[in-house]
Amino acid sequence: MGEVPADLQAVFAWIDAHADECIADLQELVRQPSISAQGVGLHECADLVEAQMRRDGLDARQHPLEGGPPVIVGHMTTPRSSKTMLCYSHYDVQPPEPLEAWDHGGPWSAAIVDGVMYGRGTTDNKSGVLAFNKAAKAFLATSGELPVNLKFIVEGEEEIGSLHLGPWVERNGALLEADGMHCLDGSVDTATELPDVSLGLKSVLFVELVVRGANADVHSLNFPLLPSPAWDLVRALNTIMDEQRRVLIDGWYEGLYELQEEDEAQLREKAERVDLDALKREWGITAFALGRDGVDAHRARQYEPTANIAGLVSGYTGPGSKTIVPNEARAKMDFRLVPHMRQEDAIAKLRAHLDAHGFGHVEVHGEARAEPPYKISVKEPMAQAVIEAALQVWGEKPIVNGVSAEGTILRHVWIPCVLTGFANPGANLHAPNENIRIADYVKGIKYAAAIMYAFGKQE
Amino acid sequence: MGEVPADLQAVFAWIDAHADECIADLQELVRQPSISAQGVGLHECADLVEAQMRRDGLDARQHPLEGGPPVIVGHMTTPRSSKTMLCYSHYDVQPPEPLEAWDHGGPWSAAIVDGVMYGRGTTDNKSGVLAFNKAAKAFLATSGELPVNLKFIVEGEEEIGSLHLGPWVERNGALLEADGMHCLDGSVDTATELPDVSLGLKSVLFVELVVRGANADVHSLNFPLLPSPAWDLVRALNTIMDEQRRVLIDGWYEGLYELQEEDEAQLREKAERVDLDALKREWGITAFALGRDGVDAHRARQYEPTANIAGLVSGYTGPGSKTIVPNEARAKMDFRLVPHMRQEDAIAKLRAHLDAHGFGHVEVHGEARAEPPYKISVKEPMAQAVIEAALQVWGEKPIVNGVSAEGTILRHVWIPCVLTGFANPGANLHAPNENIRIADYVKGIKYAAAIMYAFGKQE
Repeated sequence: MGEVPADLQAVFAWIDAHADECIADLQELVRQPSISAQGVGLHECADLVEAQMRRDGLDARQHPLEGGPPVIVGHMTTPRSSKTMLCYSHYDVQPPEPLEAWDHGGPWSAAIVDGVMYGRGTTDNKSGVLAFNKAAKAFLATSGELPVNLKFIVEGEEEIGSLHLGPWVERNGALLEADGMHCLDGSVDTATELPDVSLGLKSVLFVELVVRGANADVHSLNFPLLPSPAWDLVRALNTIMDEQRRVLIDGWYEGLYELQEEDEAQLREKAERVDLDALKREWGITAFALGRDGVDAHRARQYEPTANIAGLVSGYTGPGSKTIVPNEARAKMDFRLVPHMRQEDAIAKLRAHLDAHGFGHVEVHGEARAEPPYKISVKEPMAQAVIEAALQVWGEKPIVNGVSAEGTILRHVWIPCVLTGFANPGANLHAPNENIRIADYVKGIKYAAAIMYAFGKQE
Repeated sequence: MGEVPADLQAVFAWIDAHADECIADLQELVRQPSISAQGVGLHECADLVEAQMRRDGLDARQHPLEGGPPVIVGHMTTPRSSKTMLCYSHYDVQPPEPLEAWDHGGPWSAAIVDGVMYGRGTTDNKSGVLAFNKAAKAFLATSGELPVNLKFIVEGEEEIGSLHLGPWVERNGALLEADGMHCLDGSVDTATELPDVSLGLKSVLFVELVVRGANADVHSLNFPLLPSPAWDLVRALNTIMDEQRRVLIDGWYEGLYELQEEDEAQLREKAERVDLDALKREWGITAFALGRDGVDAHRARQYEPTANIAGLVSGYTGPGSKTIVPNEARAKMDFRLVPHMRQEDAIAKLRAHLDAHGFGHVEVHGEARAEPPYKISVKEPMAQAVIEAALQVWGEKPIVNGVSAEGTILRHVWIPCVLTGFANPGANLHAPNENIRIADYVKGIKYAAAIMYAFGKQE
């Protein structure tokens, strides 16, 4: 593994020789704002993505999405492979605020300073969109043929949870049918600067618990007679998770994936290659929760279902004291489910749990989403193709993860999917001064090309 | 009981005849702002209180207080009684904000509309200050002698916790020595409009629990490795009180007062006379906590030590969701202690409790104050004098309470003390449009006179 065949070498050489064109197109795309949370510039950006793809010789066109910005869909066939690969990316970006925190001309400048391009979307995910385009163009330019049948989907609402994509996918499934899917919306590992390759994703369930009491805050001299939403919330929460962080809700872990030897091997390898002590230093702590470390820490991070309290609020939270019994208490939780737990009935299970523990009056607000956690085996052709491609571009095996806790992928189609990427450490995703190193962008295009090539050759 | 002797009748008649003077002096006092929380007008108001007392023939003078506004202290003797009574009141008031919520010319207008005087301090506690003055003056005017030896103390920091009074009292104890003390800073019972008479007070211990984790909020994908201050706080709180609202801290109830037959008799009588359902309606609830009602509800309200959560905060509390593990969580608690629990080591007990339950990292912020809860027997001469006086003025027995949860009294001196008052329902204490009904103010002056008279006659 890791040898680069001559025809792929020619593709890499084309990419190096056309780096200026690749950079100019990324600047053009970054300079077009496309903020899904604010509804800014989305149609203009969809037009531009479509135009860039057509300019690069890709057969792509916009499809309107009911209630949302268009998706750009493409399909290119080749006689060289029987395999079809779906490339997923998104053209929308996070809001750029606070604007005053940006250097180098602001979020839409795409200014290049010391080999780094700055701007909202440089990494997330406009370089990912163009990596696919330019890789495909490189194959067409060097040999007149793609190494694999390609399908593209570029959406415009990833940053706000792909709100309107599901129904479209259901009606247009045939456009997306493929043998494997990948997505370049990930990053390199911070410690090794090698691509992180994720073979699955957790899914998140957001829930808010609300307890209400009297019709107003009442003087706490009356505490013996008053309902106490704050205490009820504390007691209700306390029944949800034990001190070993195990969720105590009946049936919560139904279908829980049992780790295979290949997963344990990946964890051991990751523990050898990736030093988690860097995280301790970053977070300013001396030990991880529950004394976890090494392989155990990696295993927990990737495979543990979680019940996080992201917010708590009740009563008076200012300076000093106030003698009130608050009449409301709220907790925001995010539960992360792992393969193959089912999200569909998670809220019902939580509701039943609270009822059974005497907390029928604790309201549960939230919506289970139709995005189950998923995981594929490292033996899947898509996984093997990505690992091979990373080896060819970086010269080292990438960091393979079982299940990532963070990331979005097109879960409406059931295609073996790998999430990877080339975002550099310090890329400031979702933050001011988002950037991409030009060298990494060029590597990313080669990575996309190598993935296409390797997947086309898979049996 | 309840018969008004002729010499006291003469005093009542003088008060009725001089109502205009009593009202004018209260207006004068209300029109002088004296906001202790804002340091506004305190010296001017102390001057005015002193001047009013001297004008009424009382021997009073200011004493400077290190770090705070002056106290006004008086002492008047009489050959008619061997008893000395201490009258405690305060000339400072709560802040008047929000100003725009005041009708009738604002907080300092002292405007009289339909028999009601409006203004900050009309009830709390400037009418209490003047009730003592005018009652004493009435005795001097009608017979040339007081019915009891009187000592006065009028302070200017009650509304902010009598911050600087303690050291002065310690050095000037002799000025305050007395056989009994009372305070007209209370109210009438809402349901019966008869004076509430409290034979004791709970004491309050304010504590803030703080749990800290990483050096910043961290993405919740890392939950399996991160300390979770919010969860730690929930678990720590959960060990402090059980679902029956019993505090689980070792030694917390040490010295707990055992209710006597006289206390149970008061509770039964109160339950017969005071319908707590009015509170349910006021609070918009259909049942009290733990299904309490009747005598049980009164007993809990008066005698139960409490552990209230007045505030909770951690992480993200705005709309929607945020995927963070908050790095800090805080709970504000107020513990109310009842006779004869000791506040001195309460924080140490809480600290030891948390340590013993594995919460050594939960910080405890707070300061035990040197104000123990107290309670006197209804058989105390001071209690008997107040009950007799109420009977004489209202024609009915007042509402006698064992221990009140709210109220301030001069606890630096160990004198049997009764807290009572004549504030009408709807007096808007601490709120905009604070007011006093003129008829109640005149009754209050008679009440003060009758208490002096009855106490002077006690053996």
